[in-house]
Amino acid sequence: MPKISTKGQMMPESPIRKLVPYAEGAKKRGVKVYHLNIGQPDIEMPQIMRDTLKNFNDKVIEYSHSAGILSYRERLCTYYQKHDIHISPDDIIIAAGGSEAILFAFQTCLNPEDEIIIPEPFYANYNGFAISSGVTVKPIISDIKDGFSLPPISAFEELITPKTKAIMICNPSNPTGYLYSREELESLKEVVKRYDLYLMADEVYREFCYDGTSHFSVMNLEGIENNVILIDSVSKRYSACGVRIGAMISKNKEVMATALKFAQARLSPPSLGQLVSEAAIDTPDAYFEMVMNEYLDRRNIVVELINKMEGAFCPMPKGAFYTVASLPVDDTDKFCQWLLEEFHYQGETLMLAPASGFYSSKGAGKNEVRISYVLNVEDLKKAMKCLEEGLKKYPGRTV
Amino acid sequence: MPKISTKGQMMPESPIRKLVPYAEGAKKRGVKVYHLNIGQPDIEMPQIMRDTLKNFNDKVIEYSHSAGILSYRERLCTYYQKHDIHISPDDIIIAAGGSEAILFAFQTCLNPEDEIIIPEPFYANYNGFAISSGVTVKPIISDIKDGFSLPPISAFEELITPKTKAIMICNPSNPTGYLYSREELESLKEVVKRYDLYLMADEVYREFCYDGTSHFSVMNLEGIENNVILIDSVSKRYSACGVRIGAMISKNKEVMATALKFAQARLSPPSLGQLVSEAAIDTPDAYFEMVMNEYLDRRNIVVELINKMEGAFCPMPKGAFYTVASLPVDDTDKFCQWLLEEFHYQGETLMLAPASGFYSSKGAGKNEVRISYVLNVEDLKKAMKCLEEGLKKYPGRTV
Repeated sequence: MPKISTKGQMMPESPIRKLVPYAEGAKKRGVKVYHLNIGQPDIEMPQIMRDTLKNFNDKVIEYSHSAGILSYRERLCTYYQKHDIHISPDDIIIAAGGSEAILFAFQTCLNPEDEIIIPEPFYANYNGFAISSGVTVKPIISDIKDGFSLPPISAFEELITPKTKAIMICNPSNPTGYLYSREELESLKEVVKRYDLYLMADEVYREFCYDGTSHFSVMNLEGIENNVILIDSVSKRYSACGVRIGAMISKNKEVMATALKFAQARLSPPSLGQLVSEAAIDTPDAYFEMVMNEYLDRRNIVVELINKMEGAFCPMPKGAFYTVASLPVDDTDKFCQWLLEEFHYQGETLMLAPASGFYSSKGAGKNEVRISYVLNVEDLKKAMKCLEEGLKKYPGRTV
Repeated sequence: MPKISTKGQMMPESPIRKLVPYAEGAKKRGVKVYHLNIGQPDIEMPQIMRDTLKNFNDKVIEYSHSAGILSYRERLCTYYQKHDIHISPDDIIIAAGGSEAILFAFQTCLNPEDEIIIPEPFYANYNGFAISSGVTVKPIISDIKDGFSLPPISAFEELITPKTKAIMICNPSNPTGYLYSREELESLKEVVKRYDLYLMADEVYREFCYDGTSHFSVMNLEGIENNVILIDSVSKRYSACGVRIGAMISKNKEVMATALKFAQARLSPPSLGQLVSEAAIDTPDAYFEMVMNEYLDRRNIVVELINKMEGAFCPMPKGAFYTVASLPVDDTDKFCQWLLEEFHYQGETLMLAPASGFYSSKGAGKNEVRISYVLNVEDLKKAMKCLEEGLKKYPGRTV
């Protein structure tokens, strides 16, 4: 039997999915499971998207341009303009989700053994894409005590070697919900400029900013236009993760011409997804107001209830729909499995994502979990009650 | 400005798309262009697929299982059973087109610098996926005089080194339309077995077999079940290239478990595409009979007319909807560009794919073109007339 590849052996299992069999087991035993483990929004998508599918009447479903349907890229420019990001259709390559956009960016900009610095905890799949591309991730721990704000620039500079080619951030952050300030981004700009690095920014949660904050895009960092690559996706914006439509965006012409060759090799991003995503650009502002208010209520209740639990701590995130909390347990990998395998409170339990999978530094995040607040407030309250009771009964509790 | 990657510099431009600007130029001058350059089928897709979109009424468009929707994989097993391929849902990972399936297969099975042997001319994008994965393609020329049949096994054995990890074929072949016989595949099996190689087979044109021939799948080569990886796609089968739904299939459990980790990193294949592809499994046989008859008429007219042109030669392919013909010209890259840039016959011209892009050996295929017969018979006749007249007037003609 032939061997599998070294990369294949190195690929991590998804931290979000590895507990799935235990959740299935719980359901088989008749236990209701609240899913706070995955970023699958539950809020109804804009009606305009469904209407587009109803009206689809083409004879065939064609390949689109490898960079995406031109009219979609043109409409996207107006969407970005509303968010004070000024680009042209040639600055955009539509990808099969933010995932493919990241792969294109890595393949285009980084050689095997090149290093990319990423503040951690970070979106776990960045690891997978780095392994796919043979790239080494150099993590910098951001501290839960500071709400996961940007580590000091000196910490970045300490990590820089001749192999360092890029810094990557997610803003607002999955998994922490932290929203970087303009000042933090300006300080990042200085190090990017000094060492001529790429700055890759995953801004798929742009719309999700709370408490009167607003999002500042890396596309507006002056003087590093050729260094910046924006990763985007419609998945979260319109509750449409399954359409697999994202984008890689840059003003750097050479980067875009090269990324297009990777895009051409796979011919086309999904056409149906592009159609509904183009239609979605007309989503009324009222939709987003409704969505933001809903997430805000959810965030408030989750953070408040966790901070009432003895020994637990949850910072107040300003963006996205995640938060990372520390819990008074020995090991959240064990605890999250125990919640599904051995525990229930009045026939109910919850599924969380152990944070260890969001750290690249060994042993980090061992008492932290990521919580996606993608359930309605009533369900979130019940889920938090389960967590509270679970923490009281868990044999590995530390308080 | 930071440098782009070495891979990015190596990526070839798509041979199918590089003439697009010249075709656009021709259209601007009012010249009608017959597109025989791309495998975008024109035959109407099954109605059942459009109906599925009309009836879509989910609240959100969700991620699917990373390996694809279970019910779809289950239904696919019945589809394959009809084609005498016997598999279970766990043997299938749904991918964003055959393209992503090939990437998963390469990433799972091959290390950078490993070698993969591919008879050429071959589907040009295999090169792109090989470069993405750092893999070296070792081509073996198959001869137009033999209709592009399998090169002798001795030619494969001569190329095998300690770095050789796989053989890849496309059956029926894009670009040649050649259909490998069971005997040819059994002889490939022996070499695969002897050297314990992976055998990757792209069988996306399975349905398209003519003249009473039938398709024999590598999945039915006994004794190498753990070596075989099947690449599939619904793009051509249902004229639905834009849905981006393909599959990687293998009985090798370790390969599938590893490929699933790559699939998990990108979360999910397109959900809408999976929905319509699942519905398409109920496409009545009469649809395929209609499609086959149509392509058969087209193939016959194209091959007949080319062979009537002085100095041109076109073998009679038994499958797919492509053929590679040799033309009496100095260089088909120049000729195909000339057809678009400087020629028209009664206000019309045609776009062909120069075959050089389908060869990895330098200089090979210089007087060959790939023709996709994806236009109706009347248009094909007009396109062939343009070709005939073009060959008479082209300054670089060799007869």
